[in-house]
Amino acid sequence: MRSTQIQLVSRPTGWPTEENFRTVETELPELGDGQVRVANDFLSVDPYMRGRMNDVRSYVPPFALNETMTGGAVGRVVESRSDEHPVGSVVVHQLGWRDVAQADASQFRVVREIDGVPTSAYLGILGMTALTAYVGLQDVARMQEGDTVFVSGAAGAVGSAVGQIARILGAGRVIGSAGSPEKVDLLTGKYGFDAAFDYKQSPVRDQLREAAPDGIDVYFDNVGGDHLEAALDAFNDGGRTALCGAISAYNTVGTTPGPDNMSNIVTRGLTLQGFTVGNYLHRFPQFAEDMGTWLSEGRVTFDETIVHGIENTVEAFLGMLRGENTGKMVVSVGNSR
Amino acid sequence: MRSTQIQLVSRPTGWPTEENFRTVETELPELGDGQVRVANDFLSVDPYMRGRMNDVRSYVPPFALNETMTGGAVGRVVESRSDEHPVGSVVVHQLGWRDVAQADASQFRVVREIDGVPTSAYLGILGMTALTAYVGLQDVARMQEGDTVFVSGAAGAVGSAVGQIARILGAGRVIGSAGSPEKVDLLTGKYGFDAAFDYKQSPVRDQLREAAPDGIDVYFDNVGGDHLEAALDAFNDGGRTALCGAISAYNTVGTTPGPDNMSNIVTRGLTLQGFTVGNYLHRFPQFAEDMGTWLSEGRVTFDETIVHGIENTVEAFLGMLRGENTGKMVVSVGNSR
Repeated sequence: MRSTQIQLVSRPTGWPTEENFRTVETELPELGDGQVRVANDFLSVDPYMRGRMNDVRSYVPPFALNETMTGGAVGRVVESRSDEHPVGSVVVHQLGWRDVAQADASQFRVVREIDGVPTSAYLGILGMTALTAYVGLQDVARMQEGDTVFVSGAAGAVGSAVGQIARILGAGRVIGSAGSPEKVDLLTGKYGFDAAFDYKQSPVRDQLREAAPDGIDVYFDNVGGDHLEAALDAFNDGGRTALCGAISAYNTVGTTPGPDNMSNIVTRGLTLQGFTVGNYLHRFPQFAEDMGTWLSEGRVTFDETIVHGIENTVEAFLGMLRGENTGKMVVSVGNSR
Repeated sequence: MRSTQIQLVSRPTGWPTEENFRTVETELPELGDGQVRVANDFLSVDPYMRGRMNDVRSYVPPFALNETMTGGAVGRVVESRSDEHPVGSVVVHQLGWRDVAQADASQFRVVREIDGVPTSAYLGILGMTALTAYVGLQDVARMQEGDTVFVSGAAGAVGSAVGQIARILGAGRVIGSAGSPEKVDLLTGKYGFDAAFDYKQSPVRDQLREAAPDGIDVYFDNVGGDHLEAALDAFNDGGRTALCGAISAYNTVGTTPGPDNMSNIVTRGLTLQGFTVGNYLHRFPQFAEDMGTWLSEGRVTFDETIVHGIENTVEAFLGMLRGENTGKMVVSVGNSR
């Protein structure tokens, strides 16, 4: 049994290219006691991965060079020497960009199959992505009933979850920004946002002011840059920002100036708090229960953008950074073994 | 009985000048029932006043044009029609830049005289200034025992209180920046800072890195600009900033770019929180008790820079903005009536 794996071989400057990666074929050894072998169905490509390709200090250490890219994946057990992981089980793991994963059973979490929900949902609406939205709104931004909530990158995997969870938690008004008219339609049509705009059409500051004439209370930031600046202008007193990512700056070479209106933080008593979902894993059980209920009641929906073939994983990752996805971007690696 | 008062007559662009103010003489009417008349001893000039001279939205509304500047003052009751405010009482009030204040007794808070402590202390170490330091460290930045604490503008009224309170609350290391070698000596010599540097000598980033080789956990920001940028670079994971003011930008015309390293907020899970002391007045009783104890035990000390004569109030205010003060800047208006 062979495993095809994608490794990081050099640290990108600016936009990553195919040259920063290589594909290797590994012959897998016999299963050891307590190990399982998993044929992956879907691999996750996520914005945070770009940050981990740099060699900078962070909560999460950088990816190691010449090792297989780690990250979320979901698959099915094809061979097992663990009683808790019988052949056929669907499992989620963090062993990343490979078609077959083999390791100690403790590395794999068995999940249940839900009628009508693809297993790829465990990488998105039932996984780390939506947990990020869930804790960012509640634990970080401390959203209250009646708040006006603004989320950037709202048609992405995290953003679309933020908008829907905000609605369920009783937000007074939910506003999203996205990068195309089609995505904007999706926000107000499918995801229940009260207002949405295309940030490529005119300045974010102007569009946000129009969409939130009474100001905003919570901002969930996936983008940074002019979006954060616009939010700082629109905030009501005591407003709170959950800083989740700054995809607008991930591939910038050199430094990017911050918002030109930082003084509003003092005068309006604002809070900006950055977070990484890895520090909120203790919230997973409650999240899983809530989200399972919301999904089954039809109160939450989701989109996926699926790229086929492990050989297209890097391209899928770059496309996600360019905003080509709607909802969660995943790579389907087939389930043919 | 006449009262000399200083009014704001136009909103400054950039640095205020004498032309933005005028001095008026008012004849005071007979005292009404329940009113008191106070001969002021000291007027307060504070950084936040510069912000209130602009006509911008803030927690605190802007100063009204053609009205007497409001703000902290301390004086002595010279005539009274209130039983709780006998002649001779020392009172603190917010009626601002005038030599004689007259109003309903409810506007004046009677304070006790303390042996060896000038009544001007009620504008500084026993007043709003030190309350700002007290709540900023505890309620906003949530300082913990063992934290490394950095404060900018550390030889100012707020900053010198921050350093000393941090020490009392068990900070592991206290670092301050100030604008002259003399002030730096004061920080380490008199106020018990572990390290201090002159921000005019070389880049703040470099000096802070040297003073805090193991990083910082809390930053109390009175300055903004390159100080905030340096702090964002020096923060350990989970670091917290209390944003109190940005004196470096108060007189800037147009906008100032923010820090170029905002991405650290996400990757290190930092929190930036702005605050205005007016939202923490409920903490005053506990503050007064703690600070009274610390002062009497000699665990807290303070400096004042006193400018004489109400006619020099605007100049005192400008001097404070230029950093000419050590500790609290107050105007002595005599106690001759």
